[in-house]
Amino acid sequence: MRVFNFSAGPSMLPLEVLKRVQAKLLDYEGCGMSVAELSHRGKVYEEINAETEALMRELMHVPANYDIIFIQGGASLQFAAIPLNIRINKKADYVVSGNWASNALKEAQNIGKHYGCDYKAIASSEDKVFSYVPKITKSMIRPDADYLHICQNNTIFGTRYNYIPDAGNVPIVNDMSSCILSEDYDVSKYGVIYAGAQKNLAPAGVTVVIVRKDLQDKFAPECPTMLKWKTQVDQKSLYNTPPSLSTYMAMEVMRYVKELGGIKAMQKHNEEKAALLYNFLDSSKFYRNPVNKEDRSLMNITFVSPSSELDDKFVKESEKAGLMFLKGHKLVGGMRASIYNAMPIEGVKALIEFMKKFELANK
Amino acid sequence: MRVFNFSAGPSMLPLEVLKRVQAKLLDYEGCGMSVAELSHRGKVYEEINAETEALMRELMHVPANYDIIFIQGGASLQFAAIPLNIRINKKADYVVSGNWASNALKEAQNIGKHYGCDYKAIASSEDKVFSYVPKITKSMIRPDADYLHICQNNTIFGTRYNYIPDAGNVPIVNDMSSCILSEDYDVSKYGVIYAGAQKNLAPAGVTVVIVRKDLQDKFAPECPTMLKWKTQVDQKSLYNTPPSLSTYMAMEVMRYVKELGGIKAMQKHNEEKAALLYNFLDSSKFYRNPVNKEDRSLMNITFVSPSSELDDKFVKESEKAGLMFLKGHKLVGGMRASIYNAMPIEGVKALIEFMKKFELANK
Repeated sequence: MRVFNFSAGPSMLPLEVLKRVQAKLLDYEGCGMSVAELSHRGKVYEEINAETEALMRELMHVPANYDIIFIQGGASLQFAAIPLNIRINKKADYVVSGNWASNALKEAQNIGKHYGCDYKAIASSEDKVFSYVPKITKSMIRPDADYLHICQNNTIFGTRYNYIPDAGNVPIVNDMSSCILSEDYDVSKYGVIYAGAQKNLAPAGVTVVIVRKDLQDKFAPECPTMLKWKTQVDQKSLYNTPPSLSTYMAMEVMRYVKELGGIKAMQKHNEEKAALLYNFLDSSKFYRNPVNKEDRSLMNITFVSPSSELDDKFVKESEKAGLMFLKGHKLVGGMRASIYNAMPIEGVKALIEFMKKFELANK
Repeated sequence: MRVFNFSAGPSMLPLEVLKRVQAKLLDYEGCGMSVAELSHRGKVYEEINAETEALMRELMHVPANYDIIFIQGGASLQFAAIPLNIRINKKADYVVSGNWASNALKEAQNIGKHYGCDYKAIASSEDKVFSYVPKITKSMIRPDADYLHICQNNTIFGTRYNYIPDAGNVPIVNDMSSCILSEDYDVSKYGVIYAGAQKNLAPAGVTVVIVRKDLQDKFAPECPTMLKWKTQVDQKSLYNTPPSLSTYMAMEVMRYVKELGGIKAMQKHNEEKAALLYNFLDSSKFYRNPVNKEDRSLMNITFVSPSSELDDKFVKESEKAGLMFLKGHKLVGGMRASIYNAMPIEGVKALIEFMKKFELANK
């Protein structure tokens, strides 16, 4: 029996997609081989690779002056790749809105200090345990910064940007790992968008990077070939052997998203699910969402019960009820329901039913 | 109908493994989730991760003073990681026995030139289109080299080391991408062994690195966190989200290899397959294997017909006969049969039957 999986990532995939992948696993569309066995230099995989790119471009309305690559390493590897790919004035500004945004800055600083680079936080919400997203105005950003780095959705703390920072001519580099394909974003407002796939897009192991063309030739001389975006742009993500099974599954996920009506339909679906859970939390005297209301994430909804003992009990009992991975991140404790695209509204309803029962039994 | 897939990588997986993966794809051993959906911080995936490591250690007899990590990026990313992880005297020696060995050196040089490092080729077989493996003696290696880099099996050219170079106290770093698990290697003779999974181990997207403990704290200060072996050793390959589906499939492949009798059984199976094809080639007046006999690969067997026109015809017609991806690499032309662990002997027999028929029709 399938359970409802609230994991922050890797996370639920659409059941329909898993079924399609399963049906083709031994023989992909009559070619006599599994996708996992296909040479990436052959026609069949090249078509998968091209369709994956085309679907991402179509779904996200990616303008022609951007390239899209599917690579390995996760967002964590991009934390290093970013300062190695965009080095102009050796300075960049970071907004520290959560743990991953903080890690991105630390990695840039670790690397940059060897090259006289000045990477710094221009704002942070650490003062209130990252329960809000800082408001960034143009005057806060150094006009000669190489880029402004933000993290669109903060997986651990359950917040998200509800606005697009005005950075003037400074390109915004946006970590969209936990929200890509969940809402309609204006790609043209960003210089670089990157995302690990394991939340909304595919199994772990593939990372998408959307890079404006003018930001592809600013790399540092010591940037490793494999970290250089231009390497993979020039080779259409096939410079070396790609993570083909995960990339293929990204294609199947995006085909399915398209069938369901594209990103706008996903957004509506996600807004409905989130509203259901937030409304319940707001009406509850037992549970509490600790996040600044206007910055609430649609993807990751954190909540606490009256005590950490009850939180522990909640997590244990919810797993027995088939509601998996609701334990909050160790940095915040409590609970977290990650309700990405693939989580059906029935999952959220089942969670609320369980929450009601748990409250009754424990208040 | 399944075909025989002679691709150099990604390549054939054991049909039995694909069937097992398929059967569990929607619900992994009753947990209600696909492996692709499992949180890497949960008990089920942690067990998979631990078993994958344990199987590799058992099958390859990896001594206790080595750690094994499963990471992203492929061997190509390791080409950069190696000189960033082992920097002692800022010099290292490379044996250029093929295209990938050459790429490993070039990447080290690209990075090293910014830090005053001296990475050089101490031997090359480029003079004869890499048709042999250079003989390395201790006197050729700088005694204060940080490491000696070799590539055990040369996928494109179809050669392999038939000896272990004596490098004295200089650790040998060995790219085993196209031969890991195919023969019984003495791990203790090497400082580092690394391999992309997509030939003998798993679908593309996971890379194994086996690192001796004393080589884990020699990294350069500017080494990105994600490229540092120690990062993943300390976190048991779970520093960031792992390529969990590919890693899991590596576990299934290694379980199966163990069931079949382990590496010694694989080696016997591989020697039989290779002997069959080499014997046929040696007895043929139509086909020719262009490689130095004693350096012949067990995994990648290259051959040519009397003309490049016939080679092209061979590739086309073999595909129609269900023998896929026999085209040789563009650097050498001709044909290449990659016969990794998962290729059954029936595949080699079918290839030889086709070769006989093709010869009859075209001689």
